[in-house]
Amino acid sequence: MAAVKDNSQIITIKDIARKFKCSPSTVSRALNDNPVINEETRKTIQEYAERMGYQRNIISLSLLNKSSKTLGVILPNINHFHESAMLEGLQSTFQPLGYLLNICVTNESYELEKQYIERLLANRVDGIFLSISQETYDGGHYEHIEKVVRRDIPLVYIDRKYDAALANGVIVDDYDGAFMATQHLIEIGCRRIAHLRGPKGLTVSEYRFNGYRDCLLKHNLPVDETLVCTTNFEVESAIEPTKYLLDLPERPDAIFGVNDHVCIGAMSVIRERNLHIPQEIALVGFDDSPIAQYLSPPLSSVQRQSRQIGLEASELLLGQLNNKVLDSKVLASKLVIRESSKR
Amino acid sequence: MAAVKDNSQIITIKDIARKFKCSPSTVSRALNDNPVINEETRKTIQEYAERMGYQRNIISLSLLNKSSKTLGVILPNINHFHESAMLEGLQSTFQPLGYLLNICVTNESYELEKQYIERLLANRVDGIFLSISQETYDGGHYEHIEKVVRRDIPLVYIDRKYDAALANGVIVDDYDGAFMATQHLIEIGCRRIAHLRGPKGLTVSEYRFNGYRDCLLKHNLPVDETLVCTTNFEVESAIEPTKYLLDLPERPDAIFGVNDHVCIGAMSVIRERNLHIPQEIALVGFDDSPIAQYLSPPLSSVQRQSRQIGLEASELLLGQLNNKVLDSKVLASKLVIRESSKR
Repeated sequence: MAAVKDNSQIITIKDIARKFKCSPSTVSRALNDNPVINEETRKTIQEYAERMGYQRNIISLSLLNKSSKTLGVILPNINHFHESAMLEGLQSTFQPLGYLLNICVTNESYELEKQYIERLLANRVDGIFLSISQETYDGGHYEHIEKVVRRDIPLVYIDRKYDAALANGVIVDDYDGAFMATQHLIEIGCRRIAHLRGPKGLTVSEYRFNGYRDCLLKHNLPVDETLVCTTNFEVESAIEPTKYLLDLPERPDAIFGVNDHVCIGAMSVIRERNLHIPQEIALVGFDDSPIAQYLSPPLSSVQRQSRQIGLEASELLLGQLNNKVLDSKVLASKLVIRESSKR
Repeated sequence: MAAVKDNSQIITIKDIARKFKCSPSTVSRALNDNPVINEETRKTIQEYAERMGYQRNIISLSLLNKSSKTLGVILPNINHFHESAMLEGLQSTFQPLGYLLNICVTNESYELEKQYIERLLANRVDGIFLSISQETYDGGHYEHIEKVVRRDIPLVYIDRKYDAALANGVIVDDYDGAFMATQHLIEIGCRRIAHLRGPKGLTVSEYRFNGYRDCLLKHNLPVDETLVCTTNFEVESAIEPTKYLLDLPERPDAIFGVNDHVCIGAMSVIRERNLHIPQEIALVGFDDSPIAQYLSPPLSSVQRQSRQIGLEASELLLGQLNNKVLDSKVLASKLVIRESSKR
C-alpha cells in the first residue's frame, strides 16, 4: 500500500520523460526493456530510474501495461445490507485509485459464474473478487478459477472461500457467530432453542446450523429436529415456520434466526400471538443490519463486519497488484446484545 | 420480441452458409454488404436471404457484429430493495438470452458516470441502462450521453430519466405517489402532516416533496416548513428529526416518510414516547419493501413496481436492438394501506 499512498512523493514516468525530453510511452517501453527503444537509451533511462528510486506502483504499472483499470466483482446476489456494505468497502478503496468495479451477479449459478469470468478476462480486468456460487461449491468446479490463476490475474475470494483454494481471501466466521448466539441464549436460561435456518446445501446456512447444533451438544442439550425450520432468508419465509413453532405442544423459548430478516418475520407472528419478547421467547438474528436496533424490541444480532470484509479484501488485491501475496483472513463475528434477548 | 422468441423457426446465417457451402462469416459479411466479398456473391446471398424471410434478430445481429453480449447497467446506488428488484427485472429478461449485465455504481458522481460510460463503450457493450446520477442532473451534463447515442449504442433510462432526453426510458411517478400518500392521510383526518424528506437537490426527494406540498395546497392546508425534516434515506437519519417533531408544542398527527426505512426509524422513536400508531400519529412510507407489512404496526407504503421497471426497460432495450424505438413509460405508483394509517 505504501507505494500507492505515497504516490505524490514518488518519481513518475512523466518526471523521467521530462528529464530526457521524450514521451512517457518511450519511458514505459525503456523500463519494460522493449527493443523498440535503442539499447543505449533503454539503459540510460533504466539507470536513472533506479537511481531516483523509481518504483513501479499500481498506477504506473497500469499505465505500462495499458491495463483496463477495471476490477471484476462476482457475487451470488446483492439483495441485502451485507453485500452492499462489502461493495462499499471495495469501492472506498479502489475508487480513489481510479479503478472501476464491474459487479456481476450469479444468482448461485456456476454457469453464469464461468461466463462472467470469461467476459472479465476478455475485458482485461486487472483483478477479480470472487464470492463463489453455491453450484460451484457443490459441483467442485474449479477449472474456471484455475484459468484466472494461470493468466496471472490477481484473484481474491470475498465472503465465501473455496476449500479448493487456488487463491486467498477474506471471510467471516459464520460458525463461530452462530455458536456465540446460541451460547448467549443458553446463558440467559433458554432450553428449547429453535433455529430458522437458511436453505439446505448453502454453505452459509450449513455453517450457521453447525454452530447452533455444536453449541447445543456442548451444553448437553438435545438437538431437536422439530425445532429447526428452513427459510430462504426473506421475511415472508419465516411466517409459516414461526406459526408452526408457536403451535408446538411444547413451545420453544428462543429462536435463533439465520439473518435479521427472518427474525422480523418471526417477530410479527410472535406479536400476533401476544407473546412477550424476550420473556416468553427470546430472539437473536444475524447480520446486524442497520434496522436491527430500531425494531420492536431492538434485535440482538451477530455482526459480520461486512464493510471490513471489503476493506481487507481490497488490501489483499492491492498486495497482489504489487506482487505481494498476503495471507487469507477470517474476520471474527461479534454478538451485539439488545432487548430481544435481555432477561 | 417476436423475432427473438420465434428464433427456432427463422432461417439463420448458418442455414444460408450451408446452402451456399461457405462459412457463416462470409454470409455475415455479404449481408453487411462488405466489399471484401465479391459483388455477385453478395447480391446472390442477399437475395436468397430476403426470399427466405431472413430477419436480423438480436442473436444473429450479435453474431454479425461480434458483439460482446454484455449490457451495462449504471445505477447511483444498489443499497435498497428497489434497486435489487429492478436488477432482478433486467436479469430475468436478459439472462435467458445469454446476455451478461455489468453493474456500475456511481454514488451520484457525474465523473464516475462518465468514466463508466467510457469503459462500457470500450468494452463494446451492446446496450446501456442508465439511471443518471444527481450530479449529472444538477450540472446539466449530457456530452457523455450524446456519445452513446452517436455511436448508436442502444440506451434506455431506468428509474430516473433525464429531462434533456436523447433516449427513452421507464420511470415511476414519484410525484403522484407522494400526492396519493398525503391525500390518504388527509382523508383519514390528519391535519398536521409532517414529512421526513430525502436529501435536498435529489430529484427523487424533490418530486416526493412536491407531491406532498401540492396535495396540502390543493386541500387548503398550510405548508408548514417546521414539519419538514431532511433525512438521508437511512433508518438512523430519521431518529433526531422524529424526536424534534414529537417535541414540537403542537405535535404532528401524521408522518409521510420518503421511504420505508425512515419510517422504521420514526416508529422506534414513537414507540419510545408511548404514542399510538395510527391513533395519535399515522405513518405512510414509500417503496413497499418486503418488510413493510411485517413491521409493528404494518406500514402503509407507496409501491414503486421496482421489478416492473426492470422488465419494461428490458423491452425498450430489446426493441432498440431490433431497431424499434418504443415510447418511454411512466409506471403508476400504488398506495398500499395497512394498519399504520387505518383509522
